[in-house]
Amino acid sequence: MMRDVAIIGCSMTKFGRLDGKDLMEILVEASLKAIDDAGVSECDFDSVYVGNMLAGELSHQSAIASALVDRINLIPASAERIENGPASGGSAVKNGFLAVASGASDMVLVAGGEKMTGVDTSTISDLMSTLNHPDAEYVHGATMPAMAALFTRLYMERYSLTERHLAMVAVKNHANGMKNPYAALHKLCTVEDAMTSAMVSDPLRLYHCCPISDGAAAVVLCPAEKAKEFTTKPVKILGFGHATDTHTLQEREDPIILKSVKIAAERAFKMAKLNPRDMDVAELHDAFAILEIAESEDIGFFKKGEGQLALEKGVTAIDGELPINPSGGLKSKGHPVGATGVAQIVELVWQLRGEAGQRQVKDPERALACNFGGFGNNTIIHILERGD
Amino acid sequence: MMRDVAIIGCSMTKFGRLDGKDLMEILVEASLKAIDDAGVSECDFDSVYVGNMLAGELSHQSAIASALVDRINLIPASAERIENGPASGGSAVKNGFLAVASGASDMVLVAGGEKMTGVDTSTISDLMSTLNHPDAEYVHGATMPAMAALFTRLYMERYSLTERHLAMVAVKNHANGMKNPYAALHKLCTVEDAMTSAMVSDPLRLYHCCPISDGAAAVVLCPAEKAKEFTTKPVKILGFGHATDTHTLQEREDPIILKSVKIAAERAFKMAKLNPRDMDVAELHDAFAILEIAESEDIGFFKKGEGQLALEKGVTAIDGELPINPSGGLKSKGHPVGATGVAQIVELVWQLRGEAGQRQVKDPERALACNFGGFGNNTIIHILERGD
Repeated sequence: MMRDVAIIGCSMTKFGRLDGKDLMEILVEASLKAIDDAGVSECDFDSVYVGNMLAGELSHQSAIASALVDRINLIPASAERIENGPASGGSAVKNGFLAVASGASDMVLVAGGEKMTGVDTSTISDLMSTLNHPDAEYVHGATMPAMAALFTRLYMERYSLTERHLAMVAVKNHANGMKNPYAALHKLCTVEDAMTSAMVSDPLRLYHCCPISDGAAAVVLCPAEKAKEFTTKPVKILGFGHATDTHTLQEREDPIILKSVKIAAERAFKMAKLNPRDMDVAELHDAFAILEIAESEDIGFFKKGEGQLALEKGVTAIDGELPINPSGGLKSKGHPVGATGVAQIVELVWQLRGEAGQRQVKDPERALACNFGGFGNNTIIHILERGD
Repeated sequence: MMRDVAIIGCSMTKFGRLDGKDLMEILVEASLKAIDDAGVSECDFDSVYVGNMLAGELSHQSAIASALVDRINLIPASAERIENGPASGGSAVKNGFLAVASGASDMVLVAGGEKMTGVDTSTISDLMSTLNHPDAEYVHGATMPAMAALFTRLYMERYSLTERHLAMVAVKNHANGMKNPYAALHKLCTVEDAMTSAMVSDPLRLYHCCPISDGAAAVVLCPAEKAKEFTTKPVKILGFGHATDTHTLQEREDPIILKSVKIAAERAFKMAKLNPRDMDVAELHDAFAILEIAESEDIGFFKKGEGQLALEKGVTAIDGELPINPSGGLKSKGHPVGATGVAQIVELVWQLRGEAGQRQVKDPERALACNFGGFGNNTIIHILERGD
């Protein structure tokens, strides 16, 4: 009943510390480049979705989607901002997909962006902590790195996962990021570097955590049957899965199973009529090193407790069997929260089109993006396929 | 191609100063009452959309949609917050509609809520001013009442609209609000009261502006073909229209034509295959008195410049030919910004079901809701029909 949906254009700004550019400027930059990439005209747009978490708190602006359509001349296209914590970008893509799939819109721009640098780290840390449960976690001083550290420690106790494995996530993703001109960090990292870096929240060290970044990304969606009018390389969105879990970590039956990831993956694979073995490349939400491993298991790529073995064997390297985070991931590319879910999809579109330059995965046909909100209480997964 | 969508349950909290209840508590209250009204079980839900403008700024919470699904046991339903300024509620309903229309979801909860009291009025005034253009309006001290005052003055110069007409909007809506147990203000107002009330921004006086309120509202949506399983009184959403306009008032070709309202109305009527004369009752976004009149014209109910004549003749009274704002409107019911667009639809569902008590309009079959964001740069219109 749904219409098939294709991505016909995409782009992103460089991620990192973008001094002198405000939130609106980076959203405009990513949006105009994506529209240009799609080769469509401004008057073609029906709808605009903007993923963003902190415009009100950090940029003192509300209704930024309405502001964006004005800035890029897409009036009278409909516009709305989606805020879903670090999953805002994936959520925006999902709603853009539904606008096209339903038949309501024929051309949709989805942009995601965040401006996070230029303020105290403690302010960012506090704002990110508002994702935690206000009474059960936040008031007790639980920050995101603290939650991730508890989660990591439990993982290490249960499975044969060591600090060395965490370091190896950083090593792989920094190496990938070196090949990505859009990545925030261009810096090789050795196992030694990671294992001796500053402690953030035991056992998580600096290199196990993503950096605070600015950045924006955008994609243009239209019905798959119209995609060929605009591009020779459309990418189809075969399916999405979106699921929630308990707000607090402590209420989960098994705190180291990411049920929102499991269910979102099941839903996405069901919709796409595919399974984990059909994927050729994936972008996962490695805000903390452990998450790349845990998500790779809960999505179904590897058995629970064995994600680190795949990492050790190089399965998830760019030239491995299932490359994970060829972009450098959140770890090295950066994590402007509202942009991340859109940027994951931009990277995968480039990979599927064969336009990922030095970090190109060999001839991928299908790809998966996992955008993870809160500490795993809201996950959105998209499955993409090369359209030619 | 789209599936037909019906509203099978709805509810709202009382609007006003809800001391001792935080944002999450009022969202929970409205949501649970709507689910109860629909007679569905918690496990039936696929998706939750939450309309809210200021959770981050005023309640220090992000990703409140994820928090809500946990609080009301709808896990693993998908969840996202829609922020679209004062049009957040209408935007949330629209996206909930698309989730069902597309076939992606079979049962959707849409909640809207805002907690605005208990902080300085100057803080609220500043936050609402962030809807204005940051460089062209906000930095110059342009507040929402100031924009509305400029707009009103231009209207008075062009058409035979007087301060007395503005007062008559207040008189009608306060009288209607007296009959609405959910309204923030239960206070009769005479033309004299309104015309001698404190000046807010010349020519707008206190009674020409909506009060600052707390409140939440919620609706339950499902495919129309399944609605009869749950209720004998389904209400169909026949169509929506959503459009944007320039961010600044000064850039509009004619600053007193609300183009976003005009285009949203045209789109909604086209989708519903109806026209303005088919409507039996409407809830318009009277954040300021002039807006009820201007919207009633730009939607096409009355000729431009003649909305006040309809008001004078009683056409828009509860017992008139086209009752407008039988709920009391934003003026008397209150305007918790994220809740408003959802609450308008709740009122219209009650009207269409014949459950509006003392303020019941005579036997309405079709209804229109107009939710207006910024100073008219983002409007969402929904058209509803009694399903029996």
